[in-house]
Amino acid sequence: MKPTDFIKLKYKPTSNDLVCLFRVEPNKMTLKEAAANVALESSVGTWTDVHEKKYVHKLGAKVFSINKKMVKIAYPSELFELGNAPNILSSIAGNIFGMSCVKNLRLVDIQFPQKLLRSFKGPKYGIQGVRKIMKVKNRPMIGTIVKPKLGLNTKDHTESAYQAWAGGCDIVKDDENLSSQKFNKFEKRLVTCLEAADKAKQQTGEEKGYMINVTDETKEMIKRAQLAEDHGSKYIMIDIVTAGFSALQTLREADFKLILHAHRAMHAAFTRNEHHGISMVCLSDFARLIGVDQLHIGTAIGKMQGDLELVSHLDDNMERKIVKANKDRLAQNWGKVKTVFPVSSGGLHPGHVPFLVKHLGNDLIIQMGGGIHGHPNGTLRGAIAARQALEATMKKIPLKTYAKNHIELRDALNYWKK
Amino acid sequence: MKPTDFIKLKYKPTSNDLVCLFRVEPNKMTLKEAAANVALESSVGTWTDVHEKKYVHKLGAKVFSINKKMVKIAYPSELFELGNAPNILSSIAGNIFGMSCVKNLRLVDIQFPQKLLRSFKGPKYGIQGVRKIMKVKNRPMIGTIVKPKLGLNTKDHTESAYQAWAGGCDIVKDDENLSSQKFNKFEKRLVTCLEAADKAKQQTGEEKGYMINVTDETKEMIKRAQLAEDHGSKYIMIDIVTAGFSALQTLREADFKLILHAHRAMHAAFTRNEHHGISMVCLSDFARLIGVDQLHIGTAIGKMQGDLELVSHLDDNMERKIVKANKDRLAQNWGKVKTVFPVSSGGLHPGHVPFLVKHLGNDLIIQMGGGIHGHPNGTLRGAIAARQALEATMKKIPLKTYAKNHIELRDALNYWKK
Repeated sequence: MKPTDFIKLKYKPTSNDLVCLFRVEPNKMTLKEAAANVALESSVGTWTDVHEKKYVHKLGAKVFSINKKMVKIAYPSELFELGNAPNILSSIAGNIFGMSCVKNLRLVDIQFPQKLLRSFKGPKYGIQGVRKIMKVKNRPMIGTIVKPKLGLNTKDHTESAYQAWAGGCDIVKDDENLSSQKFNKFEKRLVTCLEAADKAKQQTGEEKGYMINVTDETKEMIKRAQLAEDHGSKYIMIDIVTAGFSALQTLREADFKLILHAHRAMHAAFTRNEHHGISMVCLSDFARLIGVDQLHIGTAIGKMQGDLELVSHLDDNMERKIVKANKDRLAQNWGKVKTVFPVSSGGLHPGHVPFLVKHLGNDLIIQMGGGIHGHPNGTLRGAIAARQALEATMKKIPLKTYAKNHIELRDALNYWKK
Repeated sequence: MKPTDFIKLKYKPTSNDLVCLFRVEPNKMTLKEAAANVALESSVGTWTDVHEKKYVHKLGAKVFSINKKMVKIAYPSELFELGNAPNILSSIAGNIFGMSCVKNLRLVDIQFPQKLLRSFKGPKYGIQGVRKIMKVKNRPMIGTIVKPKLGLNTKDHTESAYQAWAGGCDIVKDDENLSSQKFNKFEKRLVTCLEAADKAKQQTGEEKGYMINVTDETKEMIKRAQLAEDHGSKYIMIDIVTAGFSALQTLREADFKLILHAHRAMHAAFTRNEHHGISMVCLSDFARLIGVDQLHIGTAIGKMQGDLELVSHLDDNMERKIVKANKDRLAQNWGKVKTVFPVSSGGLHPGHVPFLVKHLGNDLIIQMGGGIHGHPNGTLRGAIAARQALEATMKKIPLKTYAKNHIELRDALNYWKK
């Protein structure tokens, strides 16, 4: 097949096709030629004619729309192995980023056909399932990350988590780079933190979740998840990018009763440059497909990059059954695939709560690490301040007004001005 | 700890430190401030003071060198969990790429301390071990990828592989996006291709390897590797980036007798932009650490991007026990960690062989997909032409001269002019 055989501008995708939206910057050729080369390399072609059998042609990808740099390509679903996420990525997000015929190439969005959606488990609980387990009906959930992110021994880690729960955090998570270092081993931490969560539950009457980080080589990770389940944890967390898609699938398919929290550390190595790599929207598509219950989406404020448009789009993509198309995204009917609870995390403090709820709604987990433990009067007061900020926001009372009678919130607002 | 606590320009790294070389482009702050923030976020700090215990300070990363945009940071190895690749990446290649205090951030190179090296298996065979199994003493090995890359049924796939072996290929591999699609299921393909390899071995008197792609969710991948071993295969291949590091470690730790071939599909999503993301050198460091026997490094010619300097550097990094430092890279003593056989692949044909051997040496696997199957007279002749090109190169005879008495090579050179 020649490159031009992959251009079918009159083609209309069918319900059997996986569709990708790419942004293509050609290198020393026309946009159309570069688009053809993307379709070719990501399906059944190569750089030279290989006398192929004619029956292969029906599996060729089709460039069916070119609008400025935005290119839509349809892939017949038979190209992929059902239920094999790495296999799908090796086609639509594989060699193509390294081809010299493109200066830059961005995988902007993916539309999965129903057949493919049905071949993965999807989230076990989704937003509604998580709310049921945590007994939190309408409001956003408040979480923290134990800080400093690394280095605390198990006793101090546990005490920090306990203070956060006691002050009003629904959930406490390990940071992305804590797993089972010598200074804070997994199993001991699991046991002591779950005891602390129980104690805080008795005292506050609220459910408390501990998101322990199980990230490791797959077999050890599964053992850690099993330990968490055996000890009665509600949650586990995994770094989905550094662990990778094979292991994430294995963890999901093991079908623990645990809520699966996904951290995205390393994503920005390939999502940040808008002209090249893979969008965070695509990463969230795969995370939902494989089946995480909670995923970090950014903050549009705070220490991490990512503007409000992107964060809102991610929020939408994970919370809806039907996602509508626009010029930068493809439609998706998620069918029976459950939703994913969006998590805002990274440089947040109580003063940010109204902004987050206004723009991202109530179906949101607001995680403050430094913004709780860094409270001038410590972790307990920091967690109290965070819940006060949420209460004020839910009651539509300005934080400054609420702070007059809520000293912890007042101290937080005075300490963090921006 | 404040950001400035992470700057120690008089510090000299010890044998206990993991060292990273970053290229840092600050955003609205000085280079020094941005470097401090990278060290902070990738070790024990966060954006605000968190009243941390003093004993945590000893685990802080140290910026010990700033030279234009190149920044060196030392991490005490206690920060990491030994033998847990995703955990190490979640620190040194995690959140930092998304911080708003950097415009761009590139992880250029990594130097592992011996303690950490010893906690991973490393390659089972390395270059010498692979040569022993394949009974190829000094010359580069010649491989092909069955083409078209997807779509052939098992019978035609097998026939194509057979022709390539019969013509002189040492190894034949599946392409990165073939796993177990309906049109060409894994187990049947494994059996028929190994039979074809045996037949070609009988006819040619040479060892023949089949690099079947086992990429999938971890448990299924391990099953496929076991099948390959049970059926007497010498090799398996895995897409290390789309499968991910947890699963790669699991596969390596299962310790099959098989040679492990690593395809790097998707790497260019984060390696290509020299200003941001993770370098291919770092990816090759982790691949060697975890333990693949063969890894794609590019071609410096052909259809894929990647210049000769980069490809030579990769070649060096994988073949040496002692890698020397220069301004763009860190020294590494690989100790007892075996070497990795470098693989050049992507748009190659017989005319490229002298260039590749000249620049990358004899310890090289030269894979031609289209450049063998696309030969004007088909796969068998294409493989013959590839071996002729290698023979001429080993004898230091110009290809054009050799082609006078070698018709298959002549046809190839006439067909592919560039």
